[in-house]
Amino acid sequence: MSATVLPDGADDVREIFGSFIDETIRIVAEHGPGLISFAVGSPAVEALTLVGAGDLARTVIEREPAAALGYGVTEGDPELREIIASSARAAGIQATAEDVVVTAGALQAIDLACRVLLRPGDLVVVESPAFANALSALRNHGARVLEVPVDDEGMDVAAAARAIARAGTRPRAFFVVPNFQNPTGATLSMERRRDMLALAAEHGAVVIEDDPYRLLRYRGADLPPLAALADGVRVVHCGSFSKTFLPGIRVGWAIADRDVVRRMTAAKQTMDSSTSSLGQRLVVEFHRRGRAAEHLGALRGLYREKQDRARSALARELGDDGVRWNHPEGGFYVWVRMPEGLSARRLLDLALAEGVAFVPGDAFAVESDHSNAFRFSYSSPTPERIDEGVRRLRRAYERLVASS
Amino acid sequence: MSATVLPDGADDVREIFGSFIDETIRIVAEHGPGLISFAVGSPAVEALTLVGAGDLARTVIEREPAAALGYGVTEGDPELREIIASSARAAGIQATAEDVVVTAGALQAIDLACRVLLRPGDLVVVESPAFANALSALRNHGARVLEVPVDDEGMDVAAAARAIARAGTRPRAFFVVPNFQNPTGATLSMERRRDMLALAAEHGAVVIEDDPYRLLRYRGADLPPLAALADGVRVVHCGSFSKTFLPGIRVGWAIADRDVVRRMTAAKQTMDSSTSSLGQRLVVEFHRRGRAAEHLGALRGLYREKQDRARSALARELGDDGVRWNHPEGGFYVWVRMPEGLSARRLLDLALAEGVAFVPGDAFAVESDHSNAFRFSYSSPTPERIDEGVRRLRRAYERLVASS
Repeated sequence: MSATVLPDGADDVREIFGSFIDETIRIVAEHGPGLISFAVGSPAVEALTLVGAGDLARTVIEREPAAALGYGVTEGDPELREIIASSARAAGIQATAEDVVVTAGALQAIDLACRVLLRPGDLVVVESPAFANALSALRNHGARVLEVPVDDEGMDVAAAARAIARAGTRPRAFFVVPNFQNPTGATLSMERRRDMLALAAEHGAVVIEDDPYRLLRYRGADLPPLAALADGVRVVHCGSFSKTFLPGIRVGWAIADRDVVRRMTAAKQTMDSSTSSLGQRLVVEFHRRGRAAEHLGALRGLYREKQDRARSALARELGDDGVRWNHPEGGFYVWVRMPEGLSARRLLDLALAEGVAFVPGDAFAVESDHSNAFRFSYSSPTPERIDEGVRRLRRAYERLVASS
Repeated sequence: MSATVLPDGADDVREIFGSFIDETIRIVAEHGPGLISFAVGSPAVEALTLVGAGDLARTVIEREPAAALGYGVTEGDPELREIIASSARAAGIQATAEDVVVTAGALQAIDLACRVLLRPGDLVVVESPAFANALSALRNHGARVLEVPVDDEGMDVAAAARAIARAGTRPRAFFVVPNFQNPTGATLSMERRRDMLALAAEHGAVVIEDDPYRLLRYRGADLPPLAALADGVRVVHCGSFSKTFLPGIRVGWAIADRDVVRRMTAAKQTMDSSTSSLGQRLVVEFHRRGRAAEHLGALRGLYREKQDRARSALARELGDDGVRWNHPEGGFYVWVRMPEGLSARRLLDLALAEGVAFVPGDAFAVESDHSNAFRFSYSSPTPERIDEGVRRLRRAYERLVASS
């Protein structure tokens, strides 16, 4: 449509933050299937087909057309809420179905939590680097973010305490991805979980815990969610079926105090009315058939193999060049650091010319500097493409070094 | 979860508006299948099964698992955007695929339009009565609503001009359901469409046009959407596959200026990342098979018959009692008015005891009085249940009159 007269004060409309990740994904899409993408945090196609979704869909549609194809209630399908609550209890969270609101992915759970808990100008403590879309969600709700460095044990909570003291403002909330964090893959240690909750308690802040990767642990022991450890701290625990089942159905959840659930449900009612019934019933049918545990086992094997492959390829191709990466215990991501002074954005330009992509570190922060780092997502390409992609990456890196 | 320490100033969290409709739907659900519901604006189960969704789903999942089950791009599936643009062009709207953002139902399109176009405190002109969830969406974005009466030709635009003059503030936006409006079923006349656009132009206001029922016209001639008539006025045209295909997939859209589409897309990216790929591919496959036109014809026949049945039953049971209702040319709703002084909320209590439900008029307004009216949705019950439901309604009405 061609436009037009702007409304009065249109130059004064709300600022809307998108994310650089989406730009990268668009660039990747434009390059076509020849490009090897370490850019998106998407499940592998093999993982999607493993679900047997065609048969699940036909079953729920034919057996229960009204429940699968009609409008659902805003708070979510009752059976699905019970499945989510039951899984949360297994992780130590004291929750019943009434404490659950089903959402269009974990991101909507985060957005709803922001909508009902934050006021414009509120200070929110975030990881640096952080999940880019959540960072934009926070800012779109008017929050100011306080970026605190992540190391191998997750957010440096002592540094958070110092940053809060410097800021001179009590934070309203903490936003954290405790397990196999996006983008670093780091896991918040047990000690830091307790420290973060203590710091939140000290300031009367809520914790928004985004935990979509928890069940994709390949190594080490499960740590309790912050929502299971919280004693006197309000935690909104967000999760998703996107990484462990199917992202294309858009089904996630939040678990929170009844009062927060009630307000999130009221907000959602005016935002999209309800989550896809079809998507919800697919999840329920999958669980009814008792297939969830076995499926998770298969996914862990699949992604562990990909991570091994990615780290071996990185060691083979870039191990002698001062490039460093970590060894996450699960999830989809490895965080790669080049020597100081090298630019991941420039590397991306060179990498695209070689037919490989990733997301530069600066996409995951507002103010702090991650210009020499990037997120390497190994979840989606096949093992063979991972090898070839890292070979291409090395060629791009050599050109970067030669031109720097 | 049991809680906990409230965050600082938790009593000062944002006010969140839900809607009374949802309460009614909850009450209906609690009454079980014996209750005959004229409360929900839901497609009939016969309409859902007519789609053949089981076969569509199996086809798209098996043929294109990555496209149907993986993440989609935020702005929507490219083929679906083209289908939506093409249908809009057939209605006279100059749009290409780039002018379309796919959303989780029309309500998300409305919410996104509010998010990117409104500032807290903005005045928005709305119909009275109005679509309840949109009214709450507007208020959740901080808008003040200016309620303007609806008659048989839709919003009384001359009354809108007077109300604006009295308010002494230029409106930022108009929100309107031009065809077979929710809740009255009224259609905005051609003259009033032009008058509304002229009034919007005079004040530099945008028009948010919510048009989910347009293709469900049983009688009379199609009128051009406001987006097709706008000359120098910014219109966000919102639509949905919920009423004409399947609500449970949550797929709708907005058509707007590129700049608005870009900002809505950025906002959506931080709210739910993207619309269900599976839902979108179901719509695309249905259109590829060339089934949309024939399906719409069948739906029109189905709902016209139900409307006839509802109006005949109302005439038979309540025609001599001073109760009045209108004759919409399409859609899902008839608006029923009782004599002044009778309360539709009291009638609902009595009706629930008789096993029938509807939504009282006051659910559709913030300030204006519709206490003696109610929305009668005939879309979902079978013709036989419509007859029986209206018989029950007459018994409730007799009890109301006897006790008033």
